[in-house]
Amino acid sequence: MSVYTPVSKAQLTAWLQNYSVGALERLEPIKSGIENTNYFVTTAQGRYVLTLFERLPAAELPFYLNLMAHLARHGIPCPAPIADLSDAYLGTLNGKPAALVTRLPGKSLERPGEAACRELGFLLARLHLAGRSYPAYQENPRGPRWWRAAAQDVRPFLDAPAWKLLEAELEFQAQHRLSDLPRGPVHADLFRDNALFDGARLAGVIDFYFAGVDCWLFDVAVCANDWCLVDPGQERGLDPALTRAFLDAYHALRPFTPLERDAWPVLLRAAALRFWLSRLHDLHLPRAGELVHAHDPEHFRDVLEMRVATVPPWMEQP
Amino acid sequence: MSVYTPVSKAQLTAWLQNYSVGALERLEPIKSGIENTNYFVTTAQGRYVLTLFERLPAAELPFYLNLMAHLARHGIPCPAPIADLSDAYLGTLNGKPAALVTRLPGKSLERPGEAACRELGFLLARLHLAGRSYPAYQENPRGPRWWRAAAQDVRPFLDAPAWKLLEAELEFQAQHRLSDLPRGPVHADLFRDNALFDGARLAGVIDFYFAGVDCWLFDVAVCANDWCLVDPGQERGLDPALTRAFLDAYHALRPFTPLERDAWPVLLRAAALRFWLSRLHDLHLPRAGELVHAHDPEHFRDVLEMRVATVPPWMEQP
Repeated sequence: MSVYTPVSKAQLTAWLQNYSVGALERLEPIKSGIENTNYFVTTAQGRYVLTLFERLPAAELPFYLNLMAHLARHGIPCPAPIADLSDAYLGTLNGKPAALVTRLPGKSLERPGEAACRELGFLLARLHLAGRSYPAYQENPRGPRWWRAAAQDVRPFLDAPAWKLLEAELEFQAQHRLSDLPRGPVHADLFRDNALFDGARLAGVIDFYFAGVDCWLFDVAVCANDWCLVDPGQERGLDPALTRAFLDAYHALRPFTPLERDAWPVLLRAAALRFWLSRLHDLHLPRAGELVHAHDPEHFRDVLEMRVATVPPWMEQP
Repeated sequence: MSVYTPVSKAQLTAWLQNYSVGALERLEPIKSGIENTNYFVTTAQGRYVLTLFERLPAAELPFYLNLMAHLARHGIPCPAPIADLSDAYLGTLNGKPAALVTRLPGKSLERPGEAACRELGFLLARLHLAGRSYPAYQENPRGPRWWRAAAQDVRPFLDAPAWKLLEAELEFQAQHRLSDLPRGPVHADLFRDNALFDGARLAGVIDFYFAGVDCWLFDVAVCANDWCLVDPGQERGLDPALTRAFLDAYHALRPFTPLERDAWPVLLRAAALRFWLSRLHDLHLPRAGELVHAHDPEHFRDVLEMRVATVPPWMEQP
C-alpha cells in the first residue's frame, strides 16, 4: 500500500483552487507503487493522478515533470503534468512536493505477445527520438556510478558466490566504455507494469521517476529483460520471436548503429545488473517507513547469470 | 467545403516522419470551417486534426498555437498542438504553414439547455484564469480598431438605416472606455459550434484562431449572444434562465467586478456589433477563392438592435 501521506477530499478541494481542472468529484488511493503517494483524482474536467513525492529530492523533480510534459506534447502517450495558475507543474501538498498529471487509459499485460512487443518497440523508438530535443540533463540515477556505490552497500549481505558474480560484472562493465553509444533521455524502468494497453494499442507509458540521460540501448535492454522472456514466471532466457519483434520495430524507426549491435550483450548484462543491485538494496537496506515487500533480487541474479552464459538473440539487420 | 490545399496520404506520411505520432492510418478532409484547410488524421498513436493555414499570417500563428498549448497543459480541454522532432508546433506542408493538434471527442449542441450553459460558464472562467499566466500578447484581431476599418469597408453596401445603426453603435462604443475591465487572452469566437460535448460534459473548446487579448467580459458576451438566446433560430432575446445559468457558473469561479456589471449591456452590444460587421464583410467583400456561403449578417443586426432596445437579463449577485 503506497499512501504514506494521506490527503483528504477537503484538502485536495482547497489545493485544486489553484488549478484549472474543475471541481473535485472523486479521490481514491492507489495501492500499487512503492516510491510515492499516489491517488486517482476525478474532477468535472477529467481523470488525473495526484503524486506526493516521498523519496525524490524536490530539486530533481522538474527534470522528470518537464520530460513528461515534453514527451506528451510530442504525442508520446505519457502522463502530462497539469500546470497550476502560477504556471508551475510542481506544488506542495501536506508538506510534500506534489504534482497532478493526466491519467491514461488501459492496463498492463502480464504476458505480452509479439504484437505487444512490436508496439513497445515502436513506442520506445518514438520516445527516444522525441526526447532528443529535451534540453535538460540529469544523469541516470541508477547508472554505473550508482552501481559501484550500491555494490559496496550490499556487500555485507552477500555470500561469496554472489559477491564474486557482482564484482566480476562490475569489472566487466567498467571495461566496456559506453560513452560512444547514442544517448538521450531514457525511461530506464519500462517494465510491463509501466505500460498500459488499450486493446492492442499501447496507450500509456507511466512512471518516469527513474528517467535520466543514458545510452538509448540501455532502455532497450531493460525492456528486453522484462518483456521478451521465454516465460516471465519461470525462465530467464530471451524468447527469440518476442525479442525479434521488439528489436525490429524499434530498429524500423530508430536504426541501431554497428556500435550498438556490438554492445547489445553488454547492455543486457548492464540492465540485469542494475535491477539485481536495486532489489538487493531494497531488500537488505530498506528505507525507514517502507511499507511494501521488496521484489525478489534472485530473479535478476538469474537473468544476469544467463546473459553472461548465453549469447542473446542476435541483433541482426531485420 | 474547406479544403483549399489538398494533401495526399503519401505527402502526409512523409511529413509525419518529422513527428512522434506513429504511422498514418487515415486521412479525411473536414468539410466545415471557412478559414483553413482541415483534415482529420488518425495514426497508430491517436486522433489529430491537421490544419493548413490559408488566411492567417505565419507571424501570428505562434500566438494561437502557444495559447492552445498553454491552456491544454493547464487542463483546459482544447486542442493541444503536437511538437515536431525539432520541437516546433508550426511546420510547412504543401507550401502552407501547417500544424497538427489533438482531436477532441464530442459534438456541438444546437440547443444547449441550462446545464450546458452552466458547463460553458465554468469552462470559460477556467479558461480565463488559466490564460492569465500566458505571457504572449496579441490584440483581439476583431476588436475596436478593426470595427472602425471594417465599417468603412462595408459602408458602400449598406442602406441608410443600416449605416445609421452602425455609425451610432460605433459612436456609443467609443464613448465607453473598456480599458479598466479585467483582461487577458480570450477565445472571442466561442459559439455553440466551437464547443464539443461528450454527454453532459463539455469536453472540448476548439478553433482559437480569432483569439487575442481583450477584456474577459467580451468573451462572456460573445457566448451569451449565441448560447443564451430564447430560440436561436427565431428570437434574438436572451433567455433569462439560460443567461443566469451561464453567468452564475462563470461568476462562481471568476467573480464579476462592479465595473463589469455596469459594462454588461455595453459588451453585449459590442459582441453583436463585431459579428454583424464580420458577416457584412464576408458577404460583401469575400476573399478570392472563398468557397463557402457567408453567414447571414442580418441575424446579428437583429441581435444588436434588440440589445440596444432592451435591458438585458441583469448581472446580479447570484
